[in-house]
Amino acid sequence: MKLATFTHQGRTRIGLVRDQGIVDLSVTAPALPQEMTAFLEAGNAAMKAARDVTASASAIPLSEVTLRAPVLKPGKILAIGLNYRDHVEESGMPLPENQVWFNKQHNCAQDPYGAIDLPVVSTMLDYEAEMCFVIGKRCRHVPVERAHEVIAGYFVGNDVSVRDWQLRTNTWQIGKSFDTHGPMGPWIVTPDEVGNPHALDIKCWVNGELRQNSNTKHLIFNCFDQVAHLTQAFTLEPGDVIFSGTSGGVGIAMKPPVFLKAGDVVKVEIEKLGYIENSVVAEKGETVIA
Amino acid sequence: MKLATFTHQGRTRIGLVRDQGIVDLSVTAPALPQEMTAFLEAGNAAMKAARDVTASASAIPLSEVTLRAPVLKPGKILAIGLNYRDHVEESGMPLPENQVWFNKQHNCAQDPYGAIDLPVVSTMLDYEAEMCFVIGKRCRHVPVERAHEVIAGYFVGNDVSVRDWQLRTNTWQIGKSFDTHGPMGPWIVTPDEVGNPHALDIKCWVNGELRQNSNTKHLIFNCFDQVAHLTQAFTLEPGDVIFSGTSGGVGIAMKPPVFLKAGDVVKVEIEKLGYIENSVVAEKGETVIA
Repeated sequence: MKLATFTHQGRTRIGLVRDQGIVDLSVTAPALPQEMTAFLEAGNAAMKAARDVTASASAIPLSEVTLRAPVLKPGKILAIGLNYRDHVEESGMPLPENQVWFNKQHNCAQDPYGAIDLPVVSTMLDYEAEMCFVIGKRCRHVPVERAHEVIAGYFVGNDVSVRDWQLRTNTWQIGKSFDTHGPMGPWIVTPDEVGNPHALDIKCWVNGELRQNSNTKHLIFNCFDQVAHLTQAFTLEPGDVIFSGTSGGVGIAMKPPVFLKAGDVVKVEIEKLGYIENSVVAEKGETVIA
Repeated sequence: MKLATFTHQGRTRIGLVRDQGIVDLSVTAPALPQEMTAFLEAGNAAMKAARDVTASASAIPLSEVTLRAPVLKPGKILAIGLNYRDHVEESGMPLPENQVWFNKQHNCAQDPYGAIDLPVVSTMLDYEAEMCFVIGKRCRHVPVERAHEVIAGYFVGNDVSVRDWQLRTNTWQIGKSFDTHGPMGPWIVTPDEVGNPHALDIKCWVNGELRQNSNTKHLIFNCFDQVAHLTQAFTLEPGDVIFSGTSGGVGIAMKPPVFLKAGDVVKVEIEKLGYIENSVVAEKGETVIA
């Protein structure tokens, strides 16, 4: 099953993506929550009700909707660094003994085909193709062998990074957290349809040039390790989004480094999950106090 | 004005703290939102309506309510490290040229007199007395001279830290983010009542022993610098909470280091803002998949 957040005729809600388009769950299953986090919080019963929507349900053509970030405002966005060996090597870092985590602010969440801001305060804008997953259960102290139970699905993400801001301090935090710098989607693919999440080709192109080309089998700490580690410290909740790391091939590691500029188009594709594609647009940098 | 989130007879809402107790805004100003983030989002008009509640409004004695974290589930919690010179020195770090930031997960938010979990996975539990502030306006690219406009108020916080987890990776992130490790309160004090936020004594005691004793005038990057820096990267929103840094005197810097243990009581007090006091309780460490 593929679950999307979409906007159609000015109204945003969730739906099922099928061959014929988007089945609007607010029409076919009106008792369900119409927002993704609330839907995930409603648990197995909601998931079953969505699955039970008949195959003949009418659908809106994909061309008539705007696909949105699957979760519009995640309670948390967590991202792991240095989690593919070739990316660790190109970064000139030792292989990590422990999982290296940072947050992205929820304001990073961007639509799968939305724009990436080129900041006014930096020209060192870079991409990182990543597989994301979303949490479906409130959970804590999850053993690695049960971690699959708390993952509601997988999707594509781009952990857009502002390298000078990232590398200016040891914590990396702010350079990973600019507005719009977490495009994700195009929809959530549930685990039954993904099969093994650690055997998926993942690729990134900039203006059609292949820059990253790997497979999720190369994750150093896999998705289940990540859930087990994080939940030793804190509660994960439905709608929380995890970025699972990027492979080699980022712009800053090219010789010489090449950064994204206004007008560039970045496409990230993962086997079975689809693709996202985002244009770089110069941010205006205006003061807002609303 | 002092704004609190409180629970009374099983219902949680916001109120004004006055000499005679808590004035229940859901009774005296029923048109206002009853949750703090929504109240802050309602802007100047809501703030004025709260201010206009008559001095004779009836109040619930503080002894009859449970004070809660002023914002129960902040959209973001951001915290700055290495922001008092004596703490930088005791940490053996160079003075930072740039602001060093990390996030705390919203699950850290704990009541001003709630328990701090002693984790099952660490015994290196430590305290950090900090002044916090809460954002009152949606804002981006705020110049330092206007930063005061977006701060809705100040309160007391404890940036509880799990030192082995914190120092195991360069990003510090997970060791700063355990559930319950962000006690805060006891209420928001609005800027007009605080006056200069950078001239307040801040103290921390463990079991009655004074461990930290400083003044917010020693902040390296002050609250306004912090707002200006963060909003170059991303949008701050009403209800976002900032921890502004801790002074010297943390447990790990004692010779030999002394960590918190079950039964310890940590009190943090800031001039004009009141105090929070939290007991350390051993966490059970049970698996939860709900």
